[in-house]
Order: sequence, then structure tokens, then C-alpha cells
Amino acid sequence: MGGVKISAGLHARAAGNYFEKDRLLMTEFNRFFAPRSLAFLGASSDTNKWGYRILSNIVHGGFRGKIYPVNPRGGEALGLQFYKSLEEVPEVPDLVVIVVPPVAMVDTIKGCISKGIKAGVVVTAGFAEVNESGAAAQDEMVALARQGGMRLIGPNCFGILIPSAKLYAQMPPIFPPDGHIAVVSQSGNVGLTIARRAMAHDFGCSCMVSIGNEADLHAEDFLEYLADDAKTAVILAYIEGFKDGRRFFEIARNTSLKKPIVMIKVGETEAGASAARSHTAALSGSAEVFGGIGRQAGIIRANNLQELMNLGYGFLCHPLPKGRRVGIATLGGGWGVLAADACARLGLDVVKLPQDIIKELDSFLPGWWSRNNPVDLVAGSADAIIRVVDVLARYGGIDSVIALGVPFPHLARMTLPTNEEEKKQVIQFIVESYSKSFSDMKAISEKYGKPVIIAAELPAPRTEGSFDQDIMRSISKQNMVCYSMPDEAAMVLNSMARYGEFIRRG
Amino acid sequence: MGGVKISAGLHARAAGNYFEKDRLLMTEFNRFFAPRSLAFLGASSDTNKWGYRILSNIVHGGFRGKIYPVNPRGGEALGLQFYKSLEEVPEVPDLVVIVVPPVAMVDTIKGCISKGIKAGVVVTAGFAEVNESGAAAQDEMVALARQGGMRLIGPNCFGILIPSAKLYAQMPPIFPPDGHIAVVSQSGNVGLTIARRAMAHDFGCSCMVSIGNEADLHAEDFLEYLADDAKTAVILAYIEGFKDGRRFFEIARNTSLKKPIVMIKVGETEAGASAARSHTAALSGSAEVFGGIGRQAGIIRANNLQELMNLGYGFLCHPLPKGRRVGIATLGGGWGVLAADACARLGLDVVKLPQDIIKELDSFLPGWWSRNNPVDLVAGSADAIIRVVDVLARYGGIDSVIALGVPFPHLARMTLPTNEEEKKQVIQFIVESYSKSFSDMKAISEKYGKPVIIAAELPAPRTEGSFDQDIMRSISKQNMVCYSMPDEAAMVLNSMARYGEFIRRG
Repeated sequence: MGGVKISAGLHARAAGNYFEKDRLLMTEFNRFFAPRSLAFLGASSDTNKWGYRILSNIVHGGFRGKIYPVNPRGGEALGLQFYKSLEEVPEVPDLVVIVVPPVAMVDTIKGCISKGIKAGVVVTAGFAEVNESGAAAQDEMVALARQGGMRLIGPNCFGILIPSAKLYAQMPPIFPPDGHIAVVSQSGNVGLTIARRAMAHDFGCSCMVSIGNEADLHAEDFLEYLADDAKTAVILAYIEGFKDGRRFFEIARNTSLKKPIVMIKVGETEAGASAARSHTAALSGSAEVFGGIGRQAGIIRANNLQELMNLGYGFLCHPLPKGRRVGIATLGGGWGVLAADACARLGLDVVKLPQDIIKELDSFLPGWWSRNNPVDLVAGSADAIIRVVDVLARYGGIDSVIALGVPFPHLARMTLPTNEEEKKQVIQFIVESYSKSFSDMKAISEKYGKPVIIAAELPAPRTEGSFDQDIMRSISKQNMVCYSMPDEAAMVLNSMARYGEFIRRG
Repeated sequence: MGGVKISAGLHARAAGNYFEKDRLLMTEFNRFFAPRSLAFLGASSDTNKWGYRILSNIVHGGFRGKIYPVNPRGGEALGLQFYKSLEEVPEVPDLVVIVVPPVAMVDTIKGCISKGIKAGVVVTAGFAEVNESGAAAQDEMVALARQGGMRLIGPNCFGILIPSAKLYAQMPPIFPPDGHIAVVSQSGNVGLTIARRAMAHDFGCSCMVSIGNEADLHAEDFLEYLADDAKTAVILAYIEGFKDGRRFFEIARNTSLKKPIVMIKVGETEAGASAARSHTAALSGSAEVFGGIGRQAGIIRANNLQELMNLGYGFLCHPLPKGRRVGIATLGGGWGVLAADACARLGLDVVKLPQDIIKELDSFLPGWWSRNNPVDLVAGSADAIIRVVDVLARYGGIDSVIALGVPFPHLARMTLPTNEEEKKQVIQFIVESYSKSFSDMKAISEKYGKPVIIAAELPAPRTEGSFDQDIMRSISKQNMVCYSMPDEAAMVLNSMARYGEFIRRG
């Protein structure tokens, strides 16, 4: 049986290789987050059924532990023989993933308990989100599980995704790599949207938990676990409503003191709340109440998915700013105006530059530069922006720098060569040029301990195929991110400054 | 001499082939928008200079008219011999593009006038945006030009880009195809950001005019021209300040009655206004004033570049909704909640569905669907969403439909084949599947004359190279757009509804 290998460094404190050494460390959450074996209840060989598709994702995802598919009628799929009952399974699996129909749920849970199983993910829908009899069935299921000492995720969820365990027990075939973003979502499809977008930027996930109806385990239980999960650097959450608001905010506050929670909270309009009720039976509560309590708990609010992603990348890549004073360096005037406007609207301080800084910039910038903050290089040499960022970041009167544009590769031609070998070389040159620009910016950020947040277009020659992905990958390898719009950089910086204030207040 | 060929159809009313038939139709704006010949003053063979780079873009862009590069010292570049003076040029060019240094500007303008030139684009910077003596030099230039009957764009601008004329007289090497989005921008780099993003979505531009300091021609002059330019379906504008606010809003209102103007207005904070002054010498004015007058003029406000782009695509692809009542169909609950919340917050009406519509949906949806608006298919067959959208669009109590998700290609495997031929076939299959989904949605929209606005993730198998671009291209060929977030669809719909109200009020 394969063990979960967790690498050193950042992950040193993670749940790690506990189970190979010490069985006693196996807590209920480890069963979810690093199971050594799992039973899949409701396996199917019909490729149109979730009983096949989820099993397929578990198998293709490369889960390193034992997989025991179970179906009362037997059968086989994906090279696995189905067990006719849980009793026949030759060990007590750490985790069960359940996709049986609602009518079979009570017997299934009873079977799990008599087998001694302590952790289950109930994917099956048709409970409290549907009607009152569904709610009653859900209550019965939870009561049974609790009596038997079994904890449940769901029902009505997409599953769970733990890249470090190569566990991809979820509906769509998406396989984000291991990383430091944790996703806790009341919506499976929003959770996977988040995981997929992170993946497109080449950032990995420490987990994606689709919590569904939260019949037993609630969002806050996962926050509590993730607060001490060394692998997780930032938690992205999508929440429609709270089962126990007081407990949620208490735990969220304690978690926020350890790492940022970025959250989309929906259901604050009547239309949204009604949609949430039929989605996950969530009771949404009012915007005002959440706004105030959320801020006190240090929760960073995102207004939409794009903001959520941008904030996630920001917290992952940048140190917290020590204050609200911003310096802006830009390769183009318009982007500078957009950024200055966005900063000022959010309450960031686009400081006036003192004479000695202006003098220093004068020493190497062309005569026509703006002599203002934003420092506008006005079509001067793009390479100079690195020096400008260094001067701004060094200045004690500035807490963070926004750089709009980076030095870009100077290309002899505007189209890629048709010769495949030459083309590869040109692409490699472009990717490496950008990579170097971002590592230079990163070095400045680290030297002065201040965030350097970059928004830029990454101009490349005309080409039939896109290689943005390669550029993105080279950037995220530096643990950097390139925002595509100046106001995004301002928004991220403002939320990071606000979170810094929360942390300092304690 | 090559003539500009303008195709029939949508373009029938455009400036067209006037100059081949009737010289009298040549107005001052036609000289900018469909020049038959241009002189380039300040040509250089130094590849680091704008005098080379812009000339290179003009040549590589394939300008169909005659190009006359001029430099007092002679020289040659890009296969073109430089003329030593404008006098030597064997005809009177329709347009001059000027990149000579500021000190040479007065003589240059005098030379243009004595040659009989009526239209010039002054790229050169170093005027009112720098200091008072620059402002005085700018005034002198404009006074001279006006006396001589010559109109000017700029100074301090990126140039002008007219794809229908294959005229790419601008700084960076970007060559958007011909299309129906007009861009009028006080910032060259923001203007080109817009053109480039549109291009990435495979939408073309009718023009991109970088208006710079607006010494002579102002933003509103271009609005006035574009109002009657049949080629232009929507105008995207980036504005830092107004030279003549009253005139701007009068013309903007008249233009808005003919076609939508979507605008980013910056410089409303002190930091933004200060940046704008050093950028284009713009006086920004207050947010409150612009907000009220802008609304009265029918201007659609975008808060940032992403909104600007999304609104541009929306107006390009969809009919205007006749009211605020929205039906939402979704493949996933969370996206539905996000959309419903965003709609309600913006004042769109997520209507309650009547019993007969619910009954009709019951007839083909699986038992567990939400029976609510959003119509949540809850992991049912994705293909059913087309039928749901049809039912919603047909219903008289709904003015527009938001579809979250589209039918997607069913793939046997999760990775692309390694064999190149098979791989091509699979990619083609995926692209065609999406293309069909979008054309089905488009057909419904056209059948009922209501917007069907789509936000979706376009799931595709894991692959080293991305082919999103191919999918995007197949979608924009249908004159459709795929938003990536549910709230984007809501935002676009709200602005379209508001613009529809403006048009109906008249």
C-alpha cells in the first residue's frame, strides 16, 4: 500500500507521514485528508453514472491507497472487481465515498458503522435541499452516524479532492496539482471552478472540499482543521449560509489570525437566498450582519469569483504590506491613472514623492518622465522599470509597490518563425525573458520585505497557437502572479493591507 | 495606387469607396479613417526609434495606400527610400503621421500646410502634459494648423489604427483584424490594451484612435463621426477629462441614441486626477457631475477594463432586452446563486416562474431539479439546458435569459491522444461541439428576439498546449461571447437593460 509522500519545507508541519509511524495520530480529519484506503459505495460500470465517473476520477487521479468499490449486484469497472457488500471488504477503510440512492442511505450508513468506519463523504443528493421529507431523511442519517461515531461530509456534494494524497473523489475529471490553496465550498461546481482557475495559473491546491448541505461537518470544522494545516497558505471559501453562525465566526476569527480566509458570501438578496435554499438548503442571513461580523473575524471578502482568485494569488505570493502607502511605477500613462484612481477610491495612499526620490529617479529616467506618483516612464526603456521599483521599494515612506508592466523580450520580428526548431527557441527566449523580469521583481520584494504587485500585458508576437500558459507557468514558479488589469492590483493590495491591520490588532 | 476595399453588408453605409468615384466626398474625417496615401514625417532607420517602429508597423500592417517616409537627412528603411522634404513627395498625401521632435514641430506643420495637407496625427510628446512652455508650443501648433485648414489628432498619442484600411500607424506591433468595435482613448496604452483584448476574443475593431492631449480634435469629434459610421456597432472610450464638457455631453447623447458608448472615466480621485494631468494634461472634474450627466447622455459606465470589454462584447453580440425580467438556467447550483445574487443586487428581476412553465420543465427535467428560478439542472444532462433556455426565452414574462453552462463535448478520455492526427481530430471535435452549442443558443435568441447571455467554463481534456483560442474563435464566429463568471453576465445584462431604457425614452 502506498503512503502519501509529503515533501519537506513548507509542508514540514503537515499531517505528513504520521500513519506510517504512529497510528494514534490518525484523527477523524486525517481520515478525510490523508486516507490510506477507501471504499466506494454505489460503484457502477455504466459510464453515464456518477458511480462510474467518480470512481474513474479516483482511479485516474492515481489514489495511492487501496480502493474498494462496492455494489450489491457485483460487477467490475476500470480493472476493479466490485465487492458485493462492505462486509466483504478485507479491511476497515479509512474513508467511504457514498453515491448510493437516497432510499438506500440508512442501510448504507448502518453498514458503515458496523464495519467500524469513521469518515464518509456523501455525494448523493435529494435531502434537505429538496423538501421536508428529504430534510427528515438527512436528520436520520446524521443521527445514525453520530451514534456510531462516524463523521460525514455532505450530503449533496461534489466530493473531496486532496492532491497530496492523489485523492480525486469528485464529479468532474479535474486534477489540480498539489499546492497551498485550500478550497472550502458549499457549491461543488464553484469549488471546482476555483480549483480549475488556480490550475490554469499553475497554482496547486492543498484540498478542495465540497461541503454540500453540511448535515454533520460544517464549513467551520474545515477552517479549524486548515488553520493548523501547514500545507495550506490561504483558504478560499464559497458560502451560501451558516448552520451555526456564532460558532462559524469564532472559529473563523481564530483561523484568520493564522492565515487569510478569502470568502464569497452569497444569498444576501431575496433572489440569491431563494436560489441558495433550493441549492444547499442554506439560510443566508443579511448582508449587514455578515459584513460587520465578517470584518471583525478578519475575513477578506471577495465580491465575485475573479476577485476571489486574485486575492488568493496575492496572499500566496506576496508579503503583507505594513501600511497603506503605495508607490506606482508604470510603462504607460493610462494604466497609471487607472491604478491611482483605484487605489485612492479604496483608501490606499498614493503618496507624493519627496525631492530626493525624484532626484534619484531623474538620474536615470529620460527627461520627460512624469515626476509624479505614478512614476510614468512614458514609452521610455521598459528595462528601467526594475530600477524604478527598486527605488520606490527602498523608500521608507512607501509600504508597497504596484508595477504596471515589466521588461519584455526584445524581438527581431513580429511573427514566430515557421521552422519548428527556431520557433521553439524563440518561445523559450520569450518565456525566459518574462521569467527573469518576474524574478527580478520578486528579489526586490524580498530585499525590502514589501509587496511588489504586478499588472501587465505580456506582449508576444502573433502566433497561431498561444503560449501564455508557458509564460504563466514560469511566473508562478517564481511564486509570483501577473494581474491583467491595474485595478486588480489595487484591489488585492487594499485587501492585503486590511488583513495586515487585522493581524496587527490581533 | 491601391484603394481601400470595403465589403458590402454591414459596411454598406460606411465611408466606402467614395474616393474612387467622387473626390468631393473626401471630408476631413475620411482623410483619417480611409486615407489613400500618407506621409510619415520623422522616419528613421534606427530600429530603436519610434520613427522606425511606427513606420515598420505601417509597412507590416499592409497599408494599401502609398507611403511616403520623410527625413531631412534622407536615408532608407523597410525597403522605402526616405524623401528629404515633404515638397519632394510627388502628391498631396491625405494624411501625415508626425513623429519629429517638439522643436521641429512648428516648421513641420508649416510645411504640411504649404503642401496642402488637411489631416495629421501628431505622435510626438512633450507638450501640454509636461509644462507651461509645452502648453504654449501646443497652442501655437494648433493655431497654425487651424489657420491652414489642417486638423490634428494628438499630440502625445499612440497613433491611429484603421483595420479596414490596413492602417496600423501606432507604436506597438499589434494588428487587430477589421471589425465593429471602435476604440477612442485618451491613453494610447489603454486603447491598445482594449484592441488587444478584443483581438484575443477574436473580435475586430473598426478603429482605435489614441487622442492624446486633444489639442485640436476632441473625443466628441470622434463620437460624432462614429455615430454615423456603419461599420461601428459599439464605441469603447477611455476618458481622463473633457476639454469642453458641454459639447462632449451633447454629442455623446446624440451618439448614444444611435449606438452604445461604453466608457471608463478616470481621474475622479485626487491621486487619479493628478496622474491624469501629468499624463494628458486632462482636467478630470468630479465623479458626481459625470455620473449624473453621463447617465442622461446614455453613456454606459464601466468601472474597469474587464467590465469595458465585457460590455463591448455584450452590445456587439446580443439584442437589447425589452425589460428587466430575467430567467436563469444553470448546470450548477453555485453559479446559479452567484448569478441570482448579482442580478438582484443590480436591480434585475429574477422572476418567479409560473406553474405552467414549471410543468413544462417538469416534463423533461429529472425529478430533482430546483423548481425555481434559477432553473438548476443539478448535474442532469447538460444537453437539456438548450431546451430549458428555449422554454424560458419563449415565456412572455421574461425579457432575457442567462445560461450558465452549455452542452459540452462528451469525451471518451481525459487526455488528448499523442498521435498528432488523432489529436487534431479530437480538438476539432471539441471545438465543433462548443460551436454548435453556441449556435443553438444564438438561434434561440434570434427566434424570440431576446438576449441569451452565456457564462460557462469550457471544460477540455488535459493537454500541454491550450486550444481555448480555437474555441473562442468558433464562438465569436457565431457573434456570441462566453463570459467566464456568472456575475459578469448579470453586469452586462443590467447595462444593456439600462441602455434599452435610455433608447426607449429617446
